Amino acid sequence: MKLLPHPLYLAGEFCKTSLSTQIKNPYSGKPVAETFLGTWKEVNISVQKALEVRKALQETPSYKKSGILHQIASEIEKNRQHLAGIITSECAKPLKLSLAEVDRAVFTFQTAAEEAKRLPKEYIDLDWMPAGENKEGLVKYFPLGIIAGFTPFNFPLNLVAHKVAPAIAAGCPIIIKPSPKTPLSALELAKIIDKTPLSIGAFSVIPLRNEDAHLFTDDDRIQMLSFTGSPSVGWMLKEKAGKKKVVLELGGNAGVIVSDDCDLNLAVKKCVGGGFSYSGQTCIHTQRIYVHKNIFSNFTGMFLKGVKNLKAGDPTDPATDISVMIDEPAARRTETWVKEAVKAGAKILCGGKRKGNFFEPTVLTNTDNAMNVCSEEVFAPVVVLEPYDTFEKAVAMVNDSEFGLQAGVFTDNQKRINHAFSNLDVGGVIINNVPNFRMDHMPYGGIKNSGLGREGVKYAIVEMMEPRLLVMDK
Amino acid sequence: MKLLPHPLYLAGEFCKTSLSTQIKNPYSGKPVAETFLGTWKEVNISVQKALEVRKALQETPSYKKSGILHQIASEIEKNRQHLAGIITSECAKPLKLSLAEVDRAVFTFQTAAEEAKRLPKEYIDLDWMPAGENKEGLVKYFPLGIIAGFTPFNFPLNLVAHKVAPAIAAGCPIIIKPSPKTPLSALELAKIIDKTPLSIGAFSVIPLRNEDAHLFTDDDRIQMLSFTGSPSVGWMLKEKAGKKKVVLELGGNAGVIVSDDCDLNLAVKKCVGGGFSYSGQTCIHTQRIYVHKNIFSNFTGMFLKGVKNLKAGDPTDPATDISVMIDEPAARRTETWVKEAVKAGAKILCGGKRKGNFFEPTVLTNTDNAMNVCSEEVFAPVVVLEPYDTFEKAVAMVNDSEFGLQAGVFTDNQKRINHAFSNLDVGGVIINNVPNFRMDHMPYGGIKNSGLGREGVKYAIVEMMEPRLLVMDK
Amino acid sequence: MKLLPHPLYLAGEFCKTSLSTQIKNPYSGKPVAETFLGTWKEVNISVQKALEVRKALQETPSYKKSGILHQIASEIEKNRQHLAGIITSECAKPLKLSLAEVDRAVFTFQTAAEEAKRLPKEYIDLDWMPAGENKEGLVKYFPLGIIAGFTPFNFPLNLVAHKVAPAIAAGCPIIIKPSPKTPLSALELAKIIDKTPLSIGAFSVIPLRNEDAHLFTDDDRIQMLSFTGSPSVGWMLKEKAGKKKVVLELGGNAGVIVSDDCDLNLAVKKCVGGGFSYSGQTCIHTQRIYVHKNIFSNFTGMFLKGVKNLKAGDPTDPATDISVMIDEPAARRTETWVKEAVKAGAKILCGGKRKGNFFEPTVLTNTDNAMNVCSEEVFAPVVVLEPYDTFEKAVAMVNDSEFGLQAGVFTDNQKRINHAFSNLDVGGVIINNVPNFRMDHMPYGGIKNSGLGREGVKYAIVEMMEPRLLVMDK
Amino acid sequence: MKLLPHPLYLAGEFCKTSLSTQIKNPYSGKPVAETFLGTWKEVNISVQKALEVRKALQETPSYKKSGILHQIASEIEKNRQHLAGIITSECAKPLKLSLAEVDRAVFTFQTAAEEAKRLPKEYIDLDWMPAGENKEGLVKYFPLGIIAGFTPFNFPLNLVAHKVAPAIAAGCPIIIKPSPKTPLSALELAKIIDKTPLSIGAFSVIPLRNEDAHLFTDDDRIQMLSFTGSPSVGWMLKEKAGKKKVVLELGGNAGVIVSDDCDLNLAVKKCVGGGFSYSGQTCIHTQRIYVHKNIFSNFTGMFLKGVKNLKAGDPTDPATDISVMIDEPAARRTETWVKEAVKAGAKILCGGKRKGNFFEPTVLTNTDNAMNVCSEEVFAPVVVLEPYDTFEKAVAMVNDSEFGLQAGVFTDNQKRINHAFSNLDVGGVIINNVPNFRMDHMPYGGIKNSGLGREGVKYAIVEMMEPRLLVMDK
Repeated sequence: MKLLPHPLYLAGEFCKTSLSTQIKNPYSGKPVAETFLGTWKEVNISVQKALEVRKALQETPSYKKSGILHQIASEIEKNRQHLAGIITSECAKPLKLSLAEVDRAVFTFQTAAEEAKRLPKEYIDLDWMPAGENKEGLVKYFPLGIIAGFTPFNFPLNLVAHKVAPAIAAGCPIIIKPSPKTPLSALELAKIIDKTPLSIGAFSVIPLRNEDAHLFTDDDRIQMLSFTGSPSVGWMLKEKAGKKKVVLELGGNAGVIVSDDCDLNLAVKKCVGGGFSYSGQTCIHTQRIYVHKNIFSNFTGMFLKGVKNLKAGDPTDPATDISVMIDEPAARRTETWVKEAVKAGAKILCGGKRKGNFFEPTVLTNTDNAMNVCSEEVFAPVVVLEPYDTFEKAVAMVNDSEFGLQAGVFTDNQKRINHAFSNLDVGGVIINNVPNFRMDHMPYGGIKNSGLGREGVKYAIVEMMEPRLLVMDK
Repeated sequence: MKLLPHPLYLAGEFCKTSLSTQIKNPYSGKPVAETFLGTWKEVNISVQKALEVRKALQETPSYKKSGILHQIASEIEKNRQHLAGIITSECAKPLKLSLAEVDRAVFTFQTAAEEAKRLPKEYIDLDWMPAGENKEGLVKYFPLGIIAGFTPFNFPLNLVAHKVAPAIAAGCPIIIKPSPKTPLSALELAKIIDKTPLSIGAFSVIPLRNEDAHLFTDDDRIQMLSFTGSPSVGWMLKEKAGKKKVVLELGGNAGVIVSDDCDLNLAVKKCVGGGFSYSGQTCIHTQRIYVHKNIFSNFTGMFLKGVKNLKAGDPTDPATDISVMIDEPAARRTETWVKEAVKAGAKILCGGKRKGNFFEPTVLTNTDNAMNVCSEEVFAPVVVLEPYDTFEKAVAMVNDSEFGLQAGVFTDNQKRINHAFSNLDVGGVIINNVPNFRMDHMPYGGIKNSGLGREGVKYAIVEMMEPRLLVMDK
Repeated sequence: MKLLPHPLYLAGEFCKTSLSTQIKNPYSGKPVAETFLGTWKEVNISVQKALEVRKALQETPSYKKSGILHQIASEIEKNRQHLAGIITSECAKPLKLSLAEVDRAVFTFQTAAEEAKRLPKEYIDLDWMPAGENKEGLVKYFPLGIIAGFTPFNFPLNLVAHKVAPAIAAGCPIIIKPSPKTPLSALELAKIIDKTPLSIGAFSVIPLRNEDAHLFTDDDRIQMLSFTGSPSVGWMLKEKAGKKKVVLELGGNAGVIVSDDCDLNLAVKKCVGGGFSYSGQTCIHTQRIYVHKNIFSNFTGMFLKGVKNLKAGDPTDPATDISVMIDEPAARRTETWVKEAVKAGAKILCGGKRKGNFFEPTVLTNTDNAMNVCSEEVFAPVVVLEPYDTFEKAVAMVNDSEFGLQAGVFTDNQKRINHAFSNLDVGGVIINNVPNFRMDHMPYGGIKNSGLGREGVKYAIVEMMEPRLLVMDK
Repeated sequence: MKLLPHPLYLAGEFCKTSLSTQIKNPYSGKPVAETFLGTWKEVNISVQKALEVRKALQETPSYKKSGILHQIASEIEKNRQHLAGIITSECAKPLKLSLAEVDRAVFTFQTAAEEAKRLPKEYIDLDWMPAGENKEGLVKYFPLGIIAGFTPFNFPLNLVAHKVAPAIAAGCPIIIKPSPKTPLSALELAKIIDKTPLSIGAFSVIPLRNEDAHLFTDDDRIQMLSFTGSPSVGWMLKEKAGKKKVVLELGGNAGVIVSDDCDLNLAVKKCVGGGFSYSGQTCIHTQRIYVHKNIFSNFTGMFLKGVKNLKAGDPTDPATDISVMIDEPAARRTETWVKEAVKAGAKILCGGKRKGNFFEPTVLTNTDNAMNVCSEEVFAPVVVLEPYDTFEKAVAMVNDSEFGLQAGVFTDNQKRINHAFSNLDVGGVIINNVPNFRMDHMPYGGIKNSGLGREGVKYAIVEMMEPRLLVMDK
């Protein structure tokens, strides 16, 4: 069977290159599409076209930008099933989660449509000293310039939306380098955007071999790198970025605290979802669960029961909760880490086995921070469960990490909430929910090794703009 | 002994009128000063001078307004003991509270000095529809015009500060009508302000007989009435205000909820203070205390013990907690209300007796909302103590009132805090403190019959200004 | 022919009353619909139902409110032609203007859908003094309560939208009393809203005889009167409002300054539109045009030529610029004022004649401020044209009025723009456009006798809400 | 004569090191003080102490931080003459400018005292989708961590203030590496700060050899580098910064446009000041002046006359306008660049000669962008004067640069102002003043090669903090 070719999207043109490659369905192992990898030539054209359109984008009135973004949202909504099918086919995400991702992408574009009319602006007094008498100031934000957006395999539509939608709102041309494993959703989005009146050159999608990422970092015409992916790659890009601004949305080993005053049923239910949703392959995957010692045994029992009820299998089945991992190397790495942990004293409460690229939902205890399953980003359906003594110690356990993206805390006690908010070294503290919680308009991003800068539509827009002050007579 | 005359302050001139009157010390009963009441003539001059200075005030750069406000704060600070002595002498406030009031007045002017440089300003996009293409807008706030400020006897310095400081920051001329019982603090403030470079006409202090308040309400040259005082007078002013803007800071019968999960020692300590500080003569006096039935008996015992420890006596004694009320009619009214309540079934847990204008710290229980001590503003050292069943019912009990200024809630439970915030019909919900809590920069004001509009420096400034939009090409 | 009955909309029910009345097309003079006037009974039911739904509205999540508002916008858009036809039939507005009004109503509801998710919220530090250590504050805005909205005949759809859309966003039940001359658009809107999931009781439309307005002002269950209409009625309502909050959007005699440095073609074109659009029957009608003496003669010639080109006639004709006034009494009053002006020395440059309820586009000069055509709101196709000497004098001429809604200034000179912004006593200064300029999301409202408070979706929402502070431990 | 030793300030201790060095007065050439250079040991101690105090600083209430900042401002004010003398002695700044710098430092600390109470905070709705129902969010800013501040020689007090004051307000420990040429002002500031209750470890001053800057860039315990200085050093630091945040305040070759509609006297006066103040050794030195061809000849004559009137000489003389440059290498480099320019066709209108480290105020014309005096940061009393044709071309000429800090535009024409604001690629556009204009509270910083991030107290504070979101039930 001839595969459907998915040409890359180069500033208004769908075009093929000599570097053809196949995208395989991770579940079936069968090829689902033919795509093409870009080279210097394509990068150069996309940047050149972006340069040409910069001024026009900056001057586009907000109702036009807003209209384009609404149109994109509306088209995604119309193609909900189709797009969810593509997501599932390229990254083996269970269909119900793929549908939820499409809904979130609609929301991301709608929100950007609204924020495009509300770009930050300041009007300030300057007469605080005699030297400023009769002067006042306006601060307007201008688009930073050309953005290269690097997106990961795990949310192949909505994490592209989180870069493209703010860029359109900000008036920045953007070139997306999707994960070479999952470029199809981004290319489908290109088809939708191509039909809008967005200026040619404002948007390109160029799948690249990862080793060709330097084509972006080396290019002085690009002003910003916006990267979502693994910490090691992200920090390396920052070092090579030269004068460019860099925003990094990386991962972590997110922790959750289950306090003894909490709603236990709620905590269990949310932790099962947080630990195993999309096989743990999300930046804010619930990796470490710290439970107060008095309820540890209860929690563990209920949690394991919840894990047992997860339905594994074909991701296209609407009932499936958990399916295969993105590829076999990923599953093998997980297997190694779990084995190492067990060797070092960890105890497997359930799961632990690999079959091809499927890895069982796995719960460990008796772990310590020297084990990779604790200290590194596991990015797999593996959860560590440990008891704690006092709330303060639980906070310290969550903080004992190089990462700091989000953390969850189950409690209704205001003093504990305050202690957690003041002391958890993370970008977001989620009360009565798991770290996985994300509304696409909320400020989102990590500290420590988990990243730099913030996304969340409005916040991403601000990162893509720079202020300019006008000092004028009054 | 010849009394020191305190002339009124008329747009830069200290002057006497034919209506001389004596201010008596409520504790000693002895005259402490001679003051003068204004008439139509003085009101007219003050308004005329205010009119003349309006434009100059509007155009004063912020560093000058800020400098004047800092100077006033600094002078009040230097005269701390002197001013506290005057407060105590005219309203029988215990000296330690008078000193605290002076400190707050310093803070109020300092805060206004800072806010004078931060007047609200907006810079907005107008190109949300094609009709607004290439247009954008600036919103600047301009002073509303001449303000008549009515201030009560209970904070004769800081509640004057809460009108004068924002008016200077906003650039509005203001004429203060202090309580005829306690005009001395305002007139002392006038001496301080008179030495600053504030433009002549921007500030006047004219004590008036209460029946002459119509001189302000009838005057079309005045744009705003800012009244702090009793609900009946406040609402009457609103009806007579014509086209003027009206801000009312009135009182209430503030309630507090003591939840069974709270820190009981803290709750008792704060409630004793809240119930009897300055003999309950404050707008946010803790009048009604609702205690969970399981801890009611405990709380009551501890509370009564705390009340017993209050030191009554001479307000000039630094150790005194509670002294006489403002005058004998006030104490008699209190006596009547307590007697009526007892007749209708209330039980006195302590106090209840009057001696001249002294009224004992009084605690009642077995009350119901038909009694004045519950439903009206008691404005006296009288507290009602009742048990409650569920938190929701306690919230309903606090809400069962025509008033809604502030309420206190002692709890650390987040669900209860949220329920209280969402459902208490008041201007402010104070967690783990009594309704009396006020920081002078926080938004402050009541709903229902407790008032209209907000004070709290920044918020008062906004009330004294009006927005003007500039639509311009971009 | 039997007239289509348009029952009033009473909290989810379309119902008739005994007070039937006919709506006539002002152009054809023929009846177009039968409507029904409400009585105390209907007002009482609407208020009662509104009371019952208050709490539910307050607790509605923003995505639901936003969804309802988007649905209304979308339905209005779908019925664009139909609704424009109704507007034209009940108020004789030329069809192209009616279509523009429908578009604006769509925008008003869309904007409210967005603002419903962005209600004002503050998070503040309280530790500015030791007394506030470890405390911080949240300010959330809560719906004010039941609103009675009074709307005028001249924008029978969009000025209803300007009250209903913010009320839904704010979570306030609202009862609309449309102009008894033009209730049909509001009743059509009711049909649209009735199909949304908006809670029953949140919205009613009750046409009343104007003399029955007291049914709202007297009702203590209503918290706010939001009135758009004539100054005399508005200010009278304020006096009778008791404790209610009142927002008044009244009219004026808006002035425009044509500076000698401006783009004359632009100024002429905009002034012709501003002076005669919908026969001058708008609050921000360009009534007084002040032109620099050096260009006065040029401007006058070009302006009169522009006026001559206006096409008068049947409002249903898409080419019609100007049609009849709302009724003959209005046209007769206009005739009287023009005649009086002429008698007092004014010169008619064009127009001046009445035929039934049609009044010719009329331009006067040689006028003075003693004439009603200058000092009162003419609300008719009458414009006064006068030369001025210096820019400062032109500003003073615009300010020589009891009103202050908006003013236009044609100039590119920054010093003049600044002078105008600092000195024109109005709610909005429009550079290089006429006072008629309004984007529905901009802050809009008058000072002096032109009103109280602001509309403009976000600003209207704030007027319909009140702040509540939560002081909490941190 | 024995020199006064100025020990470095190491977390509460003034201490000497083995690396002693002399500071010479650039004007007299005589040593004025003995200072000491730090080594790894001192850097390590300062960072260690900073680490220990981080948590305490984070938890300091705002009134304490504000009090410390006010105390510093007040002490600087008391030592005005003394500090100005030190500035003049170490960097040869004319005394009147040194006094102005001290006044600005007072203002910088006062402003930080006010902003310390107004740290950014957000309170947001999360219920924009069903998944966020009943959730809301708080965003609080937390101190980023330890900051290394690099400050230049040209404002040895106020540019230190611009790092230290925001750091104290933000709650970040800061270690200042002053210019090794001018460490004395920073060390005087240390004496003042040492007397405040600021926690030990929150502030250190360690002069270092420039080649030892890597001691900061290599240290992973430091979270942020805040650098003010030359572009080449700044961008190099960014490359070596690893995971640290970097803020760069660099220089440029600022341009000014003198439009034919402007106030010529004002433009000349400001340009003379902007071109030669402190011998052009400021980041926003007016280097390039573009004058409309019609007024070029007039402007040139007036400008040269103004330059001639500048009084050169001893910087301690209160009348002196211009004195020596910081050192002879700087003057020699300037000489070389001017000679190269002349060789390539430039014409000297005045000045051009060097004597030791004094360089005459120099005006060139007939230049082009290949010359260093145009394209590089000249940082010397050298100005280039060129005519332009159309305003659009003048904007393009200013933009034809690798830098983009600030630009000045003399005009009153709104269309030109708008064109300049929309098109000048700089951080700040100054109307009717030179690029040198800076109020210390305004947002300040460059784009292109002129820097990254913003200073200006409030803006600097934000750069030193990171947001943390709390998602909570409501």
